[in-house]
Amino acid sequence: MEKKPIGLGVVGLGRAFTLMLPTFIQDERIRLVAAVDPQPGPRTQFEADFGGRVYDSVAALCGDPLVEAVYIASPHQYHAEHVALAASAGKAVLVEKPLAITLEDCTRIVEVAHEARVPIVVGHSHSFDGPVLHAARLIQSGTLGRPRMLHTMNYTDYLYRPRRPEELDTRQGGGVVFSQAAHQVDIVRLLLGGEATSVRAYTGCWDTTRPTEGAYMALVGFEGGAFASLTYSGFAHYDSDQLMGNISEMGEIKPLDAYGQSRARLASANADREAQLKAARNYGGSAYRPMSVSAGAYHQHFGPVIVSMDHADISLTPEGLWVCGDMQRELRPTPKCDVPRVEVVDELWASVREVRPPLHSAAWARANIEVCLAILESARTGKEVALTHQVKAGIVA
Amino acid sequence: MEKKPIGLGVVGLGRAFTLMLPTFIQDERIRLVAAVDPQPGPRTQFEADFGGRVYDSVAALCGDPLVEAVYIASPHQYHAEHVALAASAGKAVLVEKPLAITLEDCTRIVEVAHEARVPIVVGHSHSFDGPVLHAARLIQSGTLGRPRMLHTMNYTDYLYRPRRPEELDTRQGGGVVFSQAAHQVDIVRLLLGGEATSVRAYTGCWDTTRPTEGAYMALVGFEGGAFASLTYSGFAHYDSDQLMGNISEMGEIKPLDAYGQSRARLASANADREAQLKAARNYGGSAYRPMSVSAGAYHQHFGPVIVSMDHADISLTPEGLWVCGDMQRELRPTPKCDVPRVEVVDELWASVREVRPPLHSAAWARANIEVCLAILESARTGKEVALTHQVKAGIVA
Repeated sequence: MEKKPIGLGVVGLGRAFTLMLPTFIQDERIRLVAAVDPQPGPRTQFEADFGGRVYDSVAALCGDPLVEAVYIASPHQYHAEHVALAASAGKAVLVEKPLAITLEDCTRIVEVAHEARVPIVVGHSHSFDGPVLHAARLIQSGTLGRPRMLHTMNYTDYLYRPRRPEELDTRQGGGVVFSQAAHQVDIVRLLLGGEATSVRAYTGCWDTTRPTEGAYMALVGFEGGAFASLTYSGFAHYDSDQLMGNISEMGEIKPLDAYGQSRARLASANADREAQLKAARNYGGSAYRPMSVSAGAYHQHFGPVIVSMDHADISLTPEGLWVCGDMQRELRPTPKCDVPRVEVVDELWASVREVRPPLHSAAWARANIEVCLAILESARTGKEVALTHQVKAGIVA
Repeated sequence: MEKKPIGLGVVGLGRAFTLMLPTFIQDERIRLVAAVDPQPGPRTQFEADFGGRVYDSVAALCGDPLVEAVYIASPHQYHAEHVALAASAGKAVLVEKPLAITLEDCTRIVEVAHEARVPIVVGHSHSFDGPVLHAARLIQSGTLGRPRMLHTMNYTDYLYRPRRPEELDTRQGGGVVFSQAAHQVDIVRLLLGGEATSVRAYTGCWDTTRPTEGAYMALVGFEGGAFASLTYSGFAHYDSDQLMGNISEMGEIKPLDAYGQSRARLASANADREAQLKAARNYGGSAYRPMSVSAGAYHQHFGPVIVSMDHADISLTPEGLWVCGDMQRELRPTPKCDVPRVEVVDELWASVREVRPPLHSAAWARANIEVCLAILESARTGKEVALTHQVKAGIVA
């Protein structure tokens, strides 16, 4: 195995980068060499922290010979344009979910990557979480029979975290369907084999001050007859982390006195102040506090997931898998690495250094977005929506 | 209030009666005066326990002047015929869910009751549980805004409890849709106002030795835009009672070493022995042990239920309601009576002695069955099913 780290150029030093930074810092396979961002604060901090070069434009960053792969963490609506720039410059790409917010843009990315023959990995998403990959491996082994039914739910404060105005506008990629179903659908498809056939869904937009989807419920059918129920609410009321041993999405023990804080923080903020609040908490912002570099004591998660198979139900937890079999149940711990989200680098490394196709390819991510768009369409029309861009899940190593 | 107890004649001394018996024994408003059952064991025990008269036929029981109301707990497929006999004899009726297994039979019951001007209460079902009625009252008060979205799930060992062959045959009313969705749909409709508009669902029949629905998932839309996701599995793998503080459906603390017992018990039983096993555990059977007469320490329940409203999520527990509001959350305990399922007698008493219309009327129960039938139809056709027999929920006292 070639040991030279991958030189990573970062497009967008915002929230997604802030959350991935502990991974990039700790994993020796990554070196942060360049960045582009419209804000001076993050740019200055990046130069100071990494001695990396800072650019005015994505095109300029893509021209840097030290940049071997580009991590695209810009706002959703720019992904297609930025991937095209990186791919046509011959760079490998790690692009945040959602891949894009229209099927056309997704297809453009799939084609650009194919023509340029560059690898694209789409993530981070929570289907990279250790227990999800562990469950996928167990399901693919066939020892428990076939997967038949999957239930997943997640109740968070998503809608009341500080937001830029576009994040509250569905047409610009805002709302929980683009941001959060992108995780949930990714998990569900990986565990049920990938090829969804149709979607029926409802969405909830109940707070006129946050005029986008804050909740959804979807029922998704799969090739071979399996089906899944997906529930999400970001309305900051019930918190499903209590069903995960009070472990947060980030794998950390949750303070019990935090209830209501998201709404309280926003209560007096107008749209501008809210965007400032968000920027301040991100990398290089005035309220920025680096996340713990080492991984939490638990795996990251995206709420309870239960997969019903012929001979067992598999329940995912922040520690691993509860395998509830015909005659007994047992906890199978999922081994944990000190580097959080190491699985993202595993997949990027395999694609770039070992030329192995990623699980989270552009075509895979397009299929996720197709389901997300179908959720929006079904909710709007009241009808079942058939899917046509689905692909099989790869084999989990 | 007239104090004379209601003289109750029982049709069917099987499982449902066994589960209601602690209520009838403890509640002074009920007197067990007569019974009919094909098995000699339960008949003998009934005579010994209550000095009640035992009949050979439902018609004969309905002719007994001491019988003021008839409790119909016969197998599902006989409900319509038995209700018709009771109603035409001028008796009030308490009939177990499901009301019947075809819409035509349900309509026959609705009409018979209307013509005979006798009250019909349909239950027990878990929408009589204290926390469900408490939640319905809170929702109807309007103080938390409108109900928007409801999530409920229940994972049990239903399919592997001892069964008569007909209980494993959907055409005869077997399977979890008729037996268990009848509870879940009743709860969901009561909390969301009653008027469901359409259903999309999948069902699971994965064990060829138990050839009926063992699981389902349904997405149900409601007048006014609310929607609900219902999940049920009776495959005896994952157990959702762990999400309810390890309290069983009957409101009792669950032994932790019980895992796998249902399958183990059945492992060597053939169909005849299985039916015997079931009969043996029921009232008057060789393995019958009377249930505790007093109510458990907790409320009965049917798995987690979360109702999302404008200003709070309400999460139902065996103790009461967690109300997760905009700024704080609190547990509101649901007062508990020493008589289990006392709410069923409350409603029968109100109908018979106070001439107040029951919440769980025949028309209400027909609407539940319409949803159950729509679950089966949607699963079979892969299509959305529109509903036409829905009725508004009554006001919870």
